[in-house]
Amino acid sequence: MERRTVRVVIVGSGFVGTELVTMLLDANRQIAIEDAALAHIEIVGVGVRDLTKARPGVPAELLTDNIDELLSRDFDILVELVGGTDDAKRYVETALARGKSVVSANKALIAQEGTRLFALADANGADFFYEAAVAGAIPIVRALKTSLAGEKLDRVMGIVNGTTNFILSKMTVEGSSYDEVLAEAQALGFAEANPSADVDGFDAASKVAILSSLAFGTSLDAVEVAREGITNVRALDVEFATRQGFVIKLLGVAERVGEHGVSLRVHPVMIRSSHPLASVHGAMNAVFVDGPRSGPLMWLGKGAGGAPTATAVLGDLLDAARNIVAERHDVPFTPDDRLFLVDSDNISSEFYISLDVVDRPGVMSQVTGVFGRHGVSIRSMEQAGVGEDARLSFITHEARSGDVKATLLELAELDAVDVVANSIRVLEDAN
Amino acid sequence: MERRTVRVVIVGSGFVGTELVTMLLDANRQIAIEDAALAHIEIVGVGVRDLTKARPGVPAELLTDNIDELLSRDFDILVELVGGTDDAKRYVETALARGKSVVSANKALIAQEGTRLFALADANGADFFYEAAVAGAIPIVRALKTSLAGEKLDRVMGIVNGTTNFILSKMTVEGSSYDEVLAEAQALGFAEANPSADVDGFDAASKVAILSSLAFGTSLDAVEVAREGITNVRALDVEFATRQGFVIKLLGVAERVGEHGVSLRVHPVMIRSSHPLASVHGAMNAVFVDGPRSGPLMWLGKGAGGAPTATAVLGDLLDAARNIVAERHDVPFTPDDRLFLVDSDNISSEFYISLDVVDRPGVMSQVTGVFGRHGVSIRSMEQAGVGEDARLSFITHEARSGDVKATLLELAELDAVDVVANSIRVLEDAN
Repeated sequence: MERRTVRVVIVGSGFVGTELVTMLLDANRQIAIEDAALAHIEIVGVGVRDLTKARPGVPAELLTDNIDELLSRDFDILVELVGGTDDAKRYVETALARGKSVVSANKALIAQEGTRLFALADANGADFFYEAAVAGAIPIVRALKTSLAGEKLDRVMGIVNGTTNFILSKMTVEGSSYDEVLAEAQALGFAEANPSADVDGFDAASKVAILSSLAFGTSLDAVEVAREGITNVRALDVEFATRQGFVIKLLGVAERVGEHGVSLRVHPVMIRSSHPLASVHGAMNAVFVDGPRSGPLMWLGKGAGGAPTATAVLGDLLDAARNIVAERHDVPFTPDDRLFLVDSDNISSEFYISLDVVDRPGVMSQVTGVFGRHGVSIRSMEQAGVGEDARLSFITHEARSGDVKATLLELAELDAVDVVANSIRVLEDAN
Repeated sequence: MERRTVRVVIVGSGFVGTELVTMLLDANRQIAIEDAALAHIEIVGVGVRDLTKARPGVPAELLTDNIDELLSRDFDILVELVGGTDDAKRYVETALARGKSVVSANKALIAQEGTRLFALADANGADFFYEAAVAGAIPIVRALKTSLAGEKLDRVMGIVNGTTNFILSKMTVEGSSYDEVLAEAQALGFAEANPSADVDGFDAASKVAILSSLAFGTSLDAVEVAREGITNVRALDVEFATRQGFVIKLLGVAERVGEHGVSLRVHPVMIRSSHPLASVHGAMNAVFVDGPRSGPLMWLGKGAGGAPTATAVLGDLLDAARNIVAERHDVPFTPDDRLFLVDSDNISSEFYISLDVVDRPGVMSQVTGVFGRHGVSIRSMEQAGVGEDARLSFITHEARSGDVKATLLELAELDAVDVVANSIRVLEDAN
C-alpha cells in the first residue's frame, strides 16, 4: 500500500527533542513506526535557540534557529518542546491557526491556556495532544480520554512530581532531614537551585489541573489548585509514619464532591504502606484513579527524563499522524460549565498532628479540649519526651480541613504548646 | 452537529453484558458516551442462551435467544461476551465476514485464533478490539497498541490471574496452606470447583500469548507458553519468602531474548517486597512493561468482575464507533515471522530451592556437590530442623533453568534427600 508522508516540525531540542529525533530516525524501528502511524514520518526541521549546542543524533542539516521561518514551511504536525508559556504559546497558536496538529509536553501552557488552545485546534480541524505533559512516559492522558471515557470517575490522585518523591523516598529510607536530602538532590541534578516549583507543589498543581480536566471536564484556564508543599515535612514525621505503617507522599488530588463539585489540591499525605502508591519509589510517578464501575486503577512509570518523555511524545505523534491520514481529528473535551471548585477547607480527612509541648499536669486536658471544641475527634495519641521537650502526636478521626485549621490556630495560642510542628493528611484505605 | 447512529449487537449477557447494557442506557452518561463515540449508540438486541434468567437493567424487549437471527439484522458492531471457542468463534466470524466490527473479551478465542480473526477483520474493513481479554479493567491492550507502538519493549510481565493472586496473597497474610485457602476461595466464588484453569496457569498463559503478540508481534495461533502453576507452593515457602523480604506471585512473562527470540512462560516468582508488583493484593491484576526508552511502566486494576470488565468493553466500543464514523479501521498487527520461541530451559534466573534431607555428616557436601556439577552456584543457604526432619533452603546465583532442573533430578536420587520439595524463581531487581 502506498503510504502518504506526514511532515513534522519539532521546536525545542533538549533531552526530549534529541531523543525523539533519534527514535524517528532509528532504521530498526522504521517499519514499526510506519505501521503505527499508517504513514511515513518525515522531519522537516528542528528549531532551536542555540545552534552551537551539541545534539548527538540530530543531523545538522535539520537544525535551524529561525523558528518563525520553520513554522512557515509545509508541514502537518508541530511538536512543541520549548516549554514556558511565551514563545511556546506563539508557536502553538501559529500552527493551530494554520490547521496543523500540535503535540506538546508543556504542562504550564496547557494548565493555563488549554481550553482556549483546544478550541482553536478544533475550529481549525487540527489535533492538540499532550500525553507527555502529565507523568512523563505514563500513557494516562490517552487512557482517560478513551478507555475510561464511559466511566464517571470519583477521584484521580497521583505522585506526579519526581523531585519531591525522590526527596520523600530518601528521607524515608535514610531517616535524613529535608534539608540534607534537598541538598543531595540538587547536587545530583534532581532538584533545581531554586526548588520552589517542585517542593512547593506548583508543578504538581499544573498536572492536577490537567488530570481534572480529563477526568471531570473542568476548564483549563489557570484554575486554582490548593497547594501545600513538602518543605515542612520533618524526619520526625517520617519516622512516626514508618512506625505506624504509613509512608508520606506528595499527592496531587482531583476529587468529585457531590454531583458538580470538584476539589483540586496538592499536599503531603500519609498513606498505608500496603497501598499501591506507597511502592512508588524515587523519581517514579504514578496516577491512581477510582471509578464506581472500573474500580481502582493505577499507572506507574518514569515521570521525567529525555527518553521516557520522548516515548509519550512519539505515541501522540503517531496518533496525530493516523488522524491526518484518515482526514479527521479528535473532538477535544468541552469544559462542563456546571462544575464548581469546592474550597479545600470543606474537604474531610483524617489528620496526623504533631505538637511540641511542655509536659505538665493539665496540658493534655487543655489540648484535647481544643480539639473537642472544634469537633475534631482524636483516634490515637502518642507522647514522646518529657518536661520542656515533650512531643504529642495525634491521629484524628475524619474531620473537615477547616475545623482542623481552626484547631491548630487555637492550639498555637496555648501557653503549654511551644509550636504546632506539623499536620499531614492521613489516607486509610488500603487500595 | 447531526450525529449518526452506531448500532450494537451484544451476545452473552452475564455479569459483563448486563453491566454494559446498564452503562449504555444510563441517562446521566448519554452525553459523555456520545461525545466519546462521536455517534449515538443504539442497542439492536442482546442475544442470550436462556431467556428466563433475571437480568436486572436489561429491557426484556432487547433480549432474544435466536442469535443467528440477531446477527442477520442491520448492525455495526458485535460485542461478543459468550466466552469459549465454539459458538463465540462462529458469531465473530459471521460478523467480521459481513464487515461488522467486533469487540470481544474472549481471551481463549483470541489466544488461539487471533491472527486469523484479525486478518479476517482487516480484509473486510472491520475492527477487532479485545481490551477486556487481558487484565479486565486495565487499558493495557490500547496502551501497547498505541502509546508504546514506537518502543521496542524488552519484557512484559504481569499478575494476570486474580484467583491465584487472591490465594497467594491470603497465604502470605495468614500463613495458611494452599489447600485451606483454595477451599475458602471456592466457598467465596473466587475459584471454580475445578480450579485447574486458574491454579495450573492456563488462563494466565492465554493472556501471556496476547500480551506477547502486542509487545513483540508473536502470532496468535495457540502458541506454546511454558506453564507452572501454584499448587506446589507451600506455607513453608511463603514463610521463607517473607523472612527474606520477598513475596511469591504467579507471573505471566513475555520476554525478548536476543534479537528475534521470545520466551513465554507462567510460573511462580519470588519478587522483592519493594517491587511495585508486590503491592498487587488479592484479586487485583497488574501488568509491568520494560523498554529501553520508556523505562519500567506498570498498570494495576481489577482483573475481573462484571463492571470493571464492562468499562474495558465500553472503551473498545467507543473506539470502534469512532472508527465507523470516520469510515476507517485500525490496521491489525501483522505477526513478525522472524520471531521464534526460546525453550524456557535456556532462560536463566536465580532460584529458591527447598529440600527435605536427613541431617547427618557429609550430606551438605553431597548436596552442594550436585549443584556444582551442574554449574549452579549457591548464593545463600539456610538449614531448619534437625535429624530426620531437616530442611535446606537455597537461593542460587543466576543459572539456566535447564541446569537447575538437572540439579533437582540428581538431588532427588541422593539417599540423604527425602524429597525435593520445591523450586521457585527469584527476581531480584527492585523495579
